[in-house]
Amino acid sequence: MSNGFAFQLLKTDGAARTGEMRTPHGNVRTPAFMPVGTQATVKGLSPEQVRGTGADILLGNTYHLMLRPGAERIAELGGLHAFMNWPHPILTDSGGFQVMSLSKLRKVDADGVTFRSHVDGAMLELSPERAIEVQSLLGADIIMQLDECLQLPAPREDIARAMQLSLRWAERCKRAFDKVPAGRALFGIVQGGDDHLLRAESARALTDIGFDGYAIGGLAVGEPQSVMLHVVEQVAPALPADRPRYLMGVGTPDDLIYAVARGMDMFDCVLPTRNGRHGLAFTRFGPINLRNARHAADLRPLDAESACPAARDYSRAYLHHLVRANEMLGAILLSLVNLSYYQELMQGMRRAIGQGTFAAFSASVKEQWGRGDLPPL
Amino acid sequence: MSNGFAFQLLKTDGAARTGEMRTPHGNVRTPAFMPVGTQATVKGLSPEQVRGTGADILLGNTYHLMLRPGAERIAELGGLHAFMNWPHPILTDSGGFQVMSLSKLRKVDADGVTFRSHVDGAMLELSPERAIEVQSLLGADIIMQLDECLQLPAPREDIARAMQLSLRWAERCKRAFDKVPAGRALFGIVQGGDDHLLRAESARALTDIGFDGYAIGGLAVGEPQSVMLHVVEQVAPALPADRPRYLMGVGTPDDLIYAVARGMDMFDCVLPTRNGRHGLAFTRFGPINLRNARHAADLRPLDAESACPAARDYSRAYLHHLVRANEMLGAILLSLVNLSYYQELMQGMRRAIGQGTFAAFSASVKEQWGRGDLPPL
Repeated sequence: MSNGFAFQLLKTDGAARTGEMRTPHGNVRTPAFMPVGTQATVKGLSPEQVRGTGADILLGNTYHLMLRPGAERIAELGGLHAFMNWPHPILTDSGGFQVMSLSKLRKVDADGVTFRSHVDGAMLELSPERAIEVQSLLGADIIMQLDECLQLPAPREDIARAMQLSLRWAERCKRAFDKVPAGRALFGIVQGGDDHLLRAESARALTDIGFDGYAIGGLAVGEPQSVMLHVVEQVAPALPADRPRYLMGVGTPDDLIYAVARGMDMFDCVLPTRNGRHGLAFTRFGPINLRNARHAADLRPLDAESACPAARDYSRAYLHHLVRANEMLGAILLSLVNLSYYQELMQGMRRAIGQGTFAAFSASVKEQWGRGDLPPL
Repeated sequence: MSNGFAFQLLKTDGAARTGEMRTPHGNVRTPAFMPVGTQATVKGLSPEQVRGTGADILLGNTYHLMLRPGAERIAELGGLHAFMNWPHPILTDSGGFQVMSLSKLRKVDADGVTFRSHVDGAMLELSPERAIEVQSLLGADIIMQLDECLQLPAPREDIARAMQLSLRWAERCKRAFDKVPAGRALFGIVQGGDDHLLRAESARALTDIGFDGYAIGGLAVGEPQSVMLHVVEQVAPALPADRPRYLMGVGTPDDLIYAVARGMDMFDCVLPTRNGRHGLAFTRFGPINLRNARHAADLRPLDAESACPAARDYSRAYLHHLVRANEMLGAILLSLVNLSYYQELMQGMRRAIGQGTFAAFSASVKEQWGRGDLPPL
């Protein structure tokens, strides 16, 4: 028995699944939500605080880290876990998505992507082999293949071309992964936009190549939730049941429940921290905008029954004040509130699936959201 | 015996003093450094984190709080301690200094200051009576008289006029303070710029009125350290020995040692947090600029022997990265490092004064600063 990556499916409830991934840096309970640590930090929070919200695993952004401070630099400093003082599992994306969305002067060809750094203007290349090397230097427990992401909507021939290119890159990533120290995992990424035939072809071809886990990419790029769920509904059952399934860049609490119901196991999203920085709290009562004047004299905490001290120990009036005054502490407390709520939701889903009560759990969560926030005082 | 304000001088060592203030919200060991919680938050830190650095007391800014969220609003919400979740002592300034430095269209007359809010443009008035009322509404343990602060250098007749006006306001504040719930303290503020005769006259007149403590105001406004220390040297001995002495807005670690040596007991300053947000750390080795490229590959923590986890648990390379990437966590960790170092310095001075070794302690601290930072790797 190795100490390397493994996935155990513990229980299913309808299409929903709960399980556990083993990685060199510890276990990850699924369904799992991964907070995003873009530049080797979850914005505004210490690693202890992130861990305290209940997160088993973080996502790191290869694109940002290869630009600053650089993958070789992080390797020289002992890897990303040591660098950011997070001794628990880390998944890194391949950099492809951010190259498409953040860099200018990019050029895609069969060999990879050439792009200009938004930090210092340097020209950089990201090939499938380099994407694996960078993630290996970072020391990621879970490594993602390089893929090409398109904005939707896009012409079918563009989607087909990008999907086929991503498949060829998947093969090259698989070969390059042989040089990565044992125990790490490599995930393939299903592409194909909103085209079901292309998605099916991508899923089948990736399964033939064989990966430790499978992601659905190219969603959460502005399409309606129904389109996203339709793709998930079709792709998830086409993936091997004994491998984890990761829906990239998703989503709202609502998205998470629907995607878990359709068989997805892993998620990442900047919403809890980004919305927290903008004054929006995710709670049992649904989303709450603390900027709203109705909170200005409200002595109640966001949620007196939350396990998160930030949701319990400060009044809505105080959070409102911090948000209005643009104080860092507002962003910090609401990021904590939101990441805690996301983890509480995942924990609730894991428990419900384990008990075979996922449908009732989902209905009850949505029913409480539907009732909305506490009535005004 | 009341539960109200009291000051006990425990030990002197030369002109340096150590003692303890009792307030309705707990005791304050002196010499004391008060972190600045401008808008009901020490920027970037939770109250627990601030307490964890060793702070006994915070400073709140009346000017900012009366503009947003408003003193009546904070009173309605249970006072500043409850509002910001800081159950320990709070001193509030009178608002005078910020009116002078931050607001436009201000007008000073015998009755107080009229000024335009920088938040919403409203015209507001701050009289001596209103300054006391606002601080009472906030629930401050220590209340400051309203005074007029000038920028230095200024013509002697302007300094004299402002000092005399501040004295008349001191009398009015003392009368207004009768209406404040028992147990709180009122401090007078010595003015007079860099003019020793005016300072002496101010100190004498304030002592005649009689206050629970005495502050030296109108310094730390850009004058050389020698000017500031010269004023302190002259004013401190003119103040009653059995009352605490507060040097407003000061200063660097170096300033604190010199001012304690001259008999001052209390300090406040934004430097530890403001400089922390700009990448500068205060340490046993002197100030360290984390933005400097020499830290980029330095795996050592800022100070392995610090009591502050932020100074021990993260590499200089990581702090450098956070500062360069403009990440909130860099500001947060360096604010913690700096406030912890300030408190460690105060604790060291208190202990040394108690043991009669203040001169040796000061010399040893300065000697270590003089040696500078750790040698490069």
